[in-house]
Amino acid sequence: MTAFASDNYAPAHPDVLAAVVAANEGHAGSYGADPWTARAVERLRGHLGAQAEVFLVFNGTAANVLCIQALLRPYEAVICAESAHIAVDEGGAPERILGSKLIAVPTPDGKLTPELVEQRIVRLGDEHAVQPKVVSIAQTTELGTRYELDEVRALADLAHARGLLLHVDGARIANAAAALGADLREATADLGVDALSLGATKNGALGAEAVVLFDPAHAVGFPWWRKQTMQLASKMRYAAAQLDALFAGDLWLRNAAHANAMAQRLAAAVADAPGVRIVRPVQANAVFAVLAPEVTERLQGRFAFYVWDEATGEVRWMCSWDTTEADVDAFAAAVAEEAAGLARR
Amino acid sequence: MTAFASDNYAPAHPDVLAAVVAANEGHAGSYGADPWTARAVERLRGHLGAQAEVFLVFNGTAANVLCIQALLRPYEAVICAESAHIAVDEGGAPERILGSKLIAVPTPDGKLTPELVEQRIVRLGDEHAVQPKVVSIAQTTELGTRYELDEVRALADLAHARGLLLHVDGARIANAAAALGADLREATADLGVDALSLGATKNGALGAEAVVLFDPAHAVGFPWWRKQTMQLASKMRYAAAQLDALFAGDLWLRNAAHANAMAQRLAAAVADAPGVRIVRPVQANAVFAVLAPEVTERLQGRFAFYVWDEATGEVRWMCSWDTTEADVDAFAAAVAEEAAGLARR
Amino acid sequence: MTAFASDNYAPAHPDVLAAVVAANEGHAGSYGADPWTARAVERLRGHLGAQAEVFLVFNGTAANVLCIQALLRPYEAVICAESAHIAVDEGGAPERILGSKLIAVPTPDGKLTPELVEQRIVRLGDEHAVQPKVVSIAQTTELGTRYELDEVRALADLAHARGLLLHVDGARIANAAAALGADLREATADLGVDALSLGATKNGALGAEAVVLFDPAHAVGFPWWRKQTMQLASKMRYAAAQLDALFAGDLWLRNAAHANAMAQRLAAAVADAPGVRIVRPVQANAVFAVLAPEVTERLQGRFAFYVWDEATGEVRWMCSWDTTEADVDAFAAAVAEEAAGLARR
Amino acid sequence: MTAFASDNYAPAHPDVLAAVVAANEGHAGSYGADPWTARAVERLRGHLGAQAEVFLVFNGTAANVLCIQALLRPYEAVICAESAHIAVDEGGAPERILGSKLIAVPTPDGKLTPELVEQRIVRLGDEHAVQPKVVSIAQTTELGTRYELDEVRALADLAHARGLLLHVDGARIANAAAALGADLREATADLGVDALSLGATKNGALGAEAVVLFDPAHAVGFPWWRKQTMQLASKMRYAAAQLDALFAGDLWLRNAAHANAMAQRLAAAVADAPGVRIVRPVQANAVFAVLAPEVTERLQGRFAFYVWDEATGEVRWMCSWDTTEADVDAFAAAVAEEAAGLARR
Repeated sequence: MTAFASDNYAPAHPDVLAAVVAANEGHAGSYGADPWTARAVERLRGHLGAQAEVFLVFNGTAANVLCIQALLRPYEAVICAESAHIAVDEGGAPERILGSKLIAVPTPDGKLTPELVEQRIVRLGDEHAVQPKVVSIAQTTELGTRYELDEVRALADLAHARGLLLHVDGARIANAAAALGADLREATADLGVDALSLGATKNGALGAEAVVLFDPAHAVGFPWWRKQTMQLASKMRYAAAQLDALFAGDLWLRNAAHANAMAQRLAAAVADAPGVRIVRPVQANAVFAVLAPEVTERLQGRFAFYVWDEATGEVRWMCSWDTTEADVDAFAAAVAEEAAGLARR
Repeated sequence: MTAFASDNYAPAHPDVLAAVVAANEGHAGSYGADPWTARAVERLRGHLGAQAEVFLVFNGTAANVLCIQALLRPYEAVICAESAHIAVDEGGAPERILGSKLIAVPTPDGKLTPELVEQRIVRLGDEHAVQPKVVSIAQTTELGTRYELDEVRALADLAHARGLLLHVDGARIANAAAALGADLREATADLGVDALSLGATKNGALGAEAVVLFDPAHAVGFPWWRKQTMQLASKMRYAAAQLDALFAGDLWLRNAAHANAMAQRLAAAVADAPGVRIVRPVQANAVFAVLAPEVTERLQGRFAFYVWDEATGEVRWMCSWDTTEADVDAFAAAVAEEAAGLARR
Repeated sequence: MTAFASDNYAPAHPDVLAAVVAANEGHAGSYGADPWTARAVERLRGHLGAQAEVFLVFNGTAANVLCIQALLRPYEAVICAESAHIAVDEGGAPERILGSKLIAVPTPDGKLTPELVEQRIVRLGDEHAVQPKVVSIAQTTELGTRYELDEVRALADLAHARGLLLHVDGARIANAAAALGADLREATADLGVDALSLGATKNGALGAEAVVLFDPAHAVGFPWWRKQTMQLASKMRYAAAQLDALFAGDLWLRNAAHANAMAQRLAAAVADAPGVRIVRPVQANAVFAVLAPEVTERLQGRFAFYVWDEATGEVRWMCSWDTTEADVDAFAAAVAEEAAGLARR
Repeated sequence: MTAFASDNYAPAHPDVLAAVVAANEGHAGSYGADPWTARAVERLRGHLGAQAEVFLVFNGTAANVLCIQALLRPYEAVICAESAHIAVDEGGAPERILGSKLIAVPTPDGKLTPELVEQRIVRLGDEHAVQPKVVSIAQTTELGTRYELDEVRALADLAHARGLLLHVDGARIANAAAALGADLREATADLGVDALSLGATKNGALGAEAVVLFDPAHAVGFPWWRKQTMQLASKMRYAAAQLDALFAGDLWLRNAAHANAMAQRLAAAVADAPGVRIVRPVQANAVFAVLAPEVTERLQGRFAFYVWDEATGEVRWMCSWDTTEADVDAFAAAVAEEAAGLARR
């Protein structure tokens, strides 16, 4: 199966897997007291700033929830896009684990703006209302869009000016950085980001994510937050080895840039297919298109991908680190073929 | 480093690692919609009973908390030993995630008995008191002891007679089964166990645990419980491959039996060392001994292990699937040497 | 001070207070094991149906949260209007106490419709998404509007057809019943309502609310839910006496009908004031109007009331059981005077 | 019925009731923005110290849980006596609402000591273990005993020396102060107490309790903690009026001292009854005695009281502000009569 369903359908990059294999040597301290974890943390600090506190967790939901947990108290609230992963795809974990309200803001493109955020920073000091404390954005967004660097900075500035903090769901931060031509620090800490969910799983790992807290004051007690929310791995070396492999050199960047390039190739390749309309800017590794339902149905018989919106016929095609030009071309050909088939009927 | 610190200091068994490597092939459905997960679940059902519902989770704490979550409501309580992992080593995760009270019962050997449990099944129907609903035991226990089959059955019978359910923290269920000469089903479902945290990490995996619910009625909603508590892996195939490798044949049993045998060998080898006293029955893969603090200190300079009780000088030595006879002999020799050294002074 | 700020600015009705005084006689069982509580529960059952389970709680937030708690599990969600009290005025209590997501739906008038609800019953069976389980409406709404009987029935029918349940936040259910010409049962149980937060505080009590569960199956465990969420009163007789006094005869109805009538009188009296615009249907005991900010400011120097929306200049005037015709007339005169004053400038 | 069952079987003191009646005058700001609340808070600050932050809540469970919530984070734990109300009589509210573990310590008399506490301040810095943060004592205890002033100070000193905080469950703090000959401040703040659940309900109120935080730093965010845990009363004036009435003069002290005196009278009066044994020091308003079950049974046919321990035959007799000498004498006579009746058989 060649899948354009999700970047987590992809396997791990061979170098990452090799690192896991290499880590399988002898006894090592558990719960992160091992050299691989120390190395991975240092590696990420090298990318993100020496002051950054880095904690490994199991998955993206946990990275998001634990980042936010470090920043607020239950009666404080999170402002996020209505389409945010934390709002719609994490099974209510933020509400359950944090006890906090998410204030979900409709957006045209999955992106918050200072104006949208500002409108939700209301009723401060009113004990009947939850108190906005965290602005959470996804970079790149769930709709395949990305924030420009100054857009992130503007959100951070607004947040800080109003006493809030900025969290970035970076399940695809590598794709964003690659697309922006920025390194990880330029894309986060340097813009004023307070906490980052650093994703690796979708970028070539087997399963490894990290909570990054740029202000050490937010990390006080974090080891216990992590343990109590069931995110402390016993044999942490295996996750650490993955992060180390990805971030030791530029593998993280190559993987992401490649996935992004494949999305561009795909968008270009289907642009002229009859009845196919690209409906969102292709700014990272996702292509959103509207197709006739019949075309989608036939195409899904050949390739795995998701319908994003039943009502409009919008579909999502994700590229990943291992998507090949041939995969893209074959898929684009199939799109064209099925689209033309419908047009002929 | 040769470590007798914990079975989670050990690496993964080569066959388990090989299975992970083999799973790294092509795209696969995420979140468990992949063939490895289907296979692992079937494999475990083969061991535990066709009706068993099996769900993969990240770690032992999560397996315990999610098993219990499936069995009770927050105002219901868990009766467990005072030394239970859920009570003392999970950072308060049960209280935080479940909102429930643990009723921790002092025991001489880490084992609950029907008498001990019975005394805590009180105030039923009293709205001011939490209502006992789950009896949770560890098999083997945190003190290296094991329940005999009829001891588990007696607890299950009592629990059921009083309207309660029996959970087994099986982080080391393989060691127990090996020691008891029982298969997994004989050691759990056949005795009336309602839910099992099935451990694999300590028995040769990189990191993989499962929630097993023997009554499908308890599994209603479980996929959402798991998601909402941040325990749904995106690339689940890698954990599934580990379980499949362990449980396809008898690797799980060989690993466990070996670790148990090494503990016996160690206990025998140090029995005559001056001033060394084995203080708990060696019934699985742990040896608990009391040493002079000076001996412990010098020994810890050579081998990693934990002091269990500072006050009494009790230490814990864990054997794992990869502990060799040579490791044991070298360690026992070191114990004897340091103990004799002290005796001479 | 004559206030049009809120119906909870009003004191208790003398008959209710007299009942409290009368209850202060001798010793009585605590935590509801007293004759007043038994009588109040029976009284409410007389209004709502013999099968209804009735539990007293301290306040409206608790009534709402505990009603909902009885109906869902944390991974299940509540569909409510964006303007719902549970969504915006309960400090995030539903999220914190239930661990559940509220799906807040924009509405023009504070009222859900089957169409609006239907659009949110999505992704059923998808483990990544919270599962809608409760539709929660306020009757009357926070915007002074009310559901007609068949509108409630339509929502109940839709909910039940889709496997959901209907909760009514009845902080002002008495005002609704009075306005609808229905008794309490006709306004709730007979329409298919599953749970009712029955309000008394705003209708002449000192402080007393009740959770009403129409299906006894939903009440299983409720005493513990209430205790564990800190809503079990020790000297419950005093709250019970209040409910008994209100609901023994038709005091509840007279109080509510009077408040409604005063709102009508007020709306009529200010209708011709220059620059004053009634912006919502006056269907219960609230009047929403848009005034010039200068008028509002001057008026607030003379009477207490709230600005509902700074941006539009919308204000809320609430009438209560004790609002007199003279109060209304004086207030309307002041409105006219200040409005005319502005018009003259 | 004359009851020796509980001090919350007693009605409200007439002066307290009169204050409630007097408060029922005109409109007043809701949610505590009323003169009665301001007055009650100032009144309590007069007793407890000008820096004390005072918040009214509905009941004793809430006062305890909210005091503790202000002092810790969920991964931090509470050390309390095994017999503590928070541990055994609050339906698991602390675990559910706080998400925290209670470390319940067996005691002979319901009282913690520095030695007992010290033994539980362990594993600091260990991320696998909850971190003790609050020591919680009841003054007077659930067993009718009281801490001497220097015993409280010793616990506060130990707590502070180890980085912990001291909470006092003062459901019966008035009885303690009366018995100790101390004023409220001498019995709390002056000894180093950090947070006090100030009880009034059992001491003559209808239902009113307060959270007192002696260090304003602990009160940051408290209004939201209270709201989110459903403890903010809308017509707060009625609870405030109760506290004001009790604490304006010395009514709180007279009520408590009287209840204490009645317990002494009762203990003395039954001392010679055959087969009746007072088994705990009578240091406040409770008498604990062991009776023959037959005597208990016959006596319960005449007076309401609780069996404290079925196994030993221990019963609890509580005196309250309204217990009269005649009540005590009649009850003591009944005890003697039933005891003698048994002795004769």
